[in-house]
Amino acid sequence: MDFFNTVSVKEGREILMKNFEDYDFKTEHVDLEYSINRVLGEDIYSNINVPEFNRSTVDGYAIRVEDSHGASQSIPSIINILGEVMMGEEINSSIKGGESFYVPTGGMIPEGSDGVVMVENVEKMDSSTLLIYKPISQGENISYKGDDIKKGELILEKGRKITTGAIGVLAALGIPKVCVYCRPRFYIISTGDEIIGIEDELTLGKIRDINSYTLGSLVHNVGGIVVGRKIVRDNYELLRNEVKKAIDISDIVLLSGGSSVGTRDYTAKVIDSFGGKGVLFHGLAVKPGKPTIVGEADGKLICGLPGHPISSIIVFKALLEYYIRKKMGIAEIIPRVKAIMDHNFRSDPGKETYQMIELRQEGGDFHGTPAFGKSGMISLLSKSQGYIIIGSHEEGIYKGEEREVYLLQ
Amino acid sequence: MDFFNTVSVKEGREILMKNFEDYDFKTEHVDLEYSINRVLGEDIYSNINVPEFNRSTVDGYAIRVEDSHGASQSIPSIINILGEVMMGEEINSSIKGGESFYVPTGGMIPEGSDGVVMVENVEKMDSSTLLIYKPISQGENISYKGDDIKKGELILEKGRKITTGAIGVLAALGIPKVCVYCRPRFYIISTGDEIIGIEDELTLGKIRDINSYTLGSLVHNVGGIVVGRKIVRDNYELLRNEVKKAIDISDIVLLSGGSSVGTRDYTAKVIDSFGGKGVLFHGLAVKPGKPTIVGEADGKLICGLPGHPISSIIVFKALLEYYIRKKMGIAEIIPRVKAIMDHNFRSDPGKETYQMIELRQEGGDFHGTPAFGKSGMISLLSKSQGYIIIGSHEEGIYKGEEREVYLLQ
Repeated sequence: MDFFNTVSVKEGREILMKNFEDYDFKTEHVDLEYSINRVLGEDIYSNINVPEFNRSTVDGYAIRVEDSHGASQSIPSIINILGEVMMGEEINSSIKGGESFYVPTGGMIPEGSDGVVMVENVEKMDSSTLLIYKPISQGENISYKGDDIKKGELILEKGRKITTGAIGVLAALGIPKVCVYCRPRFYIISTGDEIIGIEDELTLGKIRDINSYTLGSLVHNVGGIVVGRKIVRDNYELLRNEVKKAIDISDIVLLSGGSSVGTRDYTAKVIDSFGGKGVLFHGLAVKPGKPTIVGEADGKLICGLPGHPISSIIVFKALLEYYIRKKMGIAEIIPRVKAIMDHNFRSDPGKETYQMIELRQEGGDFHGTPAFGKSGMISLLSKSQGYIIIGSHEEGIYKGEEREVYLLQ
Repeated sequence: MDFFNTVSVKEGREILMKNFEDYDFKTEHVDLEYSINRVLGEDIYSNINVPEFNRSTVDGYAIRVEDSHGASQSIPSIINILGEVMMGEEINSSIKGGESFYVPTGGMIPEGSDGVVMVENVEKMDSSTLLIYKPISQGENISYKGDDIKKGELILEKGRKITTGAIGVLAALGIPKVCVYCRPRFYIISTGDEIIGIEDELTLGKIRDINSYTLGSLVHNVGGIVVGRKIVRDNYELLRNEVKKAIDISDIVLLSGGSSVGTRDYTAKVIDSFGGKGVLFHGLAVKPGKPTIVGEADGKLICGLPGHPISSIIVFKALLEYYIRKKMGIAEIIPRVKAIMDHNFRSDPGKETYQMIELRQEGGDFHGTPAFGKSGMISLLSKSQGYIIIGSHEEGIYKGEEREVYLLQ
């Protein structure tokens, strides 16, 4: 079928979510020490109270707060010292009015006490008599059982990216093996008669296969894994065979290249030749990145990306990275900086424009220069650290404007 | 030696750089596809011109620009068509005044031509005669050989983190194996009688070994590798033996815990017991994180970090991450967002304060709440996504102020 059904980025994302909503990314258990940057595959509830007991946050005397009321430097309260609580030891005694226990920082508060008066504000008259010079309030200097975290409380949500903080929580809860989503498996096919391997000699009219490497790194950074990559000539049968192989062993098949009308036709035909819904949309209203095809073949997500390296990076981020993050619920903040734009830049109204930006830091501020040029493909890749998104309703960006620059890592 | 020589973060960094400036992080070659996020170990110069030849950026006719001067819709210039340049083919013919070649987008410009007039602005009278309706300027629609990148040009600098963009450049240059810095090897020792393994049952007064996991994830994210980890009791001989083992197989030894005066003494003594400069400083004017020791033992960097998980994360980032980035020249932008502070917060003047922040997004803006509490260690780890740095000259932060929040990944 040779239609050309262009959708906006928003529509494209909705089509992806709608058609691959119940795509089954399985979970697996990995050792805590290797779980950093993976995505949590289950909710984590606390199996402990933290702290596990009422404990003192200072070195001092556990008392009944009412015993300190009215105490002052000139007229101290006088109460008994029953003993000393040792660090890391349980205290089974309790106190009543007129009694106290010495408790070190972190030590357990005896039953009956509802406040700790700091050593600075007391004086020991003798081994069993305490003078209190300052009143304290209810709960003062006590960290109550479960104050930090309560047993049974939801502490880390499924779909959360495992950061250093999350690792700390999992260690504290004593979870040596973590349930995480399996890495989504990608298969990357570069198409085009002009594409050669990166080790091949560059001859006239040939282009090295840049995209399978740039896309591979994006896959890696979004938590996926590349299970296969291949360069395929412009030939329907060859492409179909390769896609067949890819469908069998991967979750998502990326076809890059094929920006020529001929190749686009192949790609659409190949997608439609399998079981399933076939081509879902063909053409994305984004600059750069128009020649994008998304379809379903034998239950798998197939995405044909533009051949231009920058365009394929942009479409990957706009559609596939979005999909993976949504699907797995990765709530992580996408790294970005705010930068002052150094140039006016016109965009195409009616299309979302992703503009690569060269950043430089001046004092505490970032300044961004739109990276363009006639054909600056390699210098663009080397110099731009991020991109801005110009909405389809906008006419461009103005010099001096502050924009959010998403970092390309 | 039992001195306590407190330094500022800035001084601590200088001491690190000065004493471990010529620390030898070796380089190795890795396959391009596995080089993402590694650090480039050599300068990369381009071995090609991009484009490799003068090429057309449009479908049009390559002419001598002067032949189009004065051309208009009513009085077109009339010149000869010598032929057509095919995509991906070399053109050995040249043109002189009054002559032209058809050239497709990306096609090679014949010798003698200095501009391409777009097909939209010409008409073919017959197979060999062209009418030009619009003048063009010098170099119009030509991308000259080396315009994007020149052979011999420095394109990626040693010490640069290998991002997706850099991967694209390396692929374009045909570099299948990349010279990168070896991952710095870390050995993590948790000290303290109260520390138990994460699989051990939590009994009163015991604390699970959180730090070796949180520190391990920070090591991973800064590009390092954990070559060993161990829990050691508070005992000089045991600690010394473990440090000895660590020095033999790692580049940097992290000791975490030991915030008690006793353990701090052990740590200093152990560092001083080897050959080398011994303890370089003891005490860091940072909140939280004061009990920090840095020293050199048998040529290796030894760093004693505070026992509190948040403090050890902060000190790792303030000192060791800084050191690794500087040493390897990682010019990457540290991920951060600007956020509006929701509360006033007092800091300790005279100390740099690293305050953990809980972020939430409202509309397009980030809001940050300082995460504190009596003992909110685990909730802090679970809820804060980053931290702000309050300078030693500042008194704190004010509600409504916009601050840079560094993301904790």
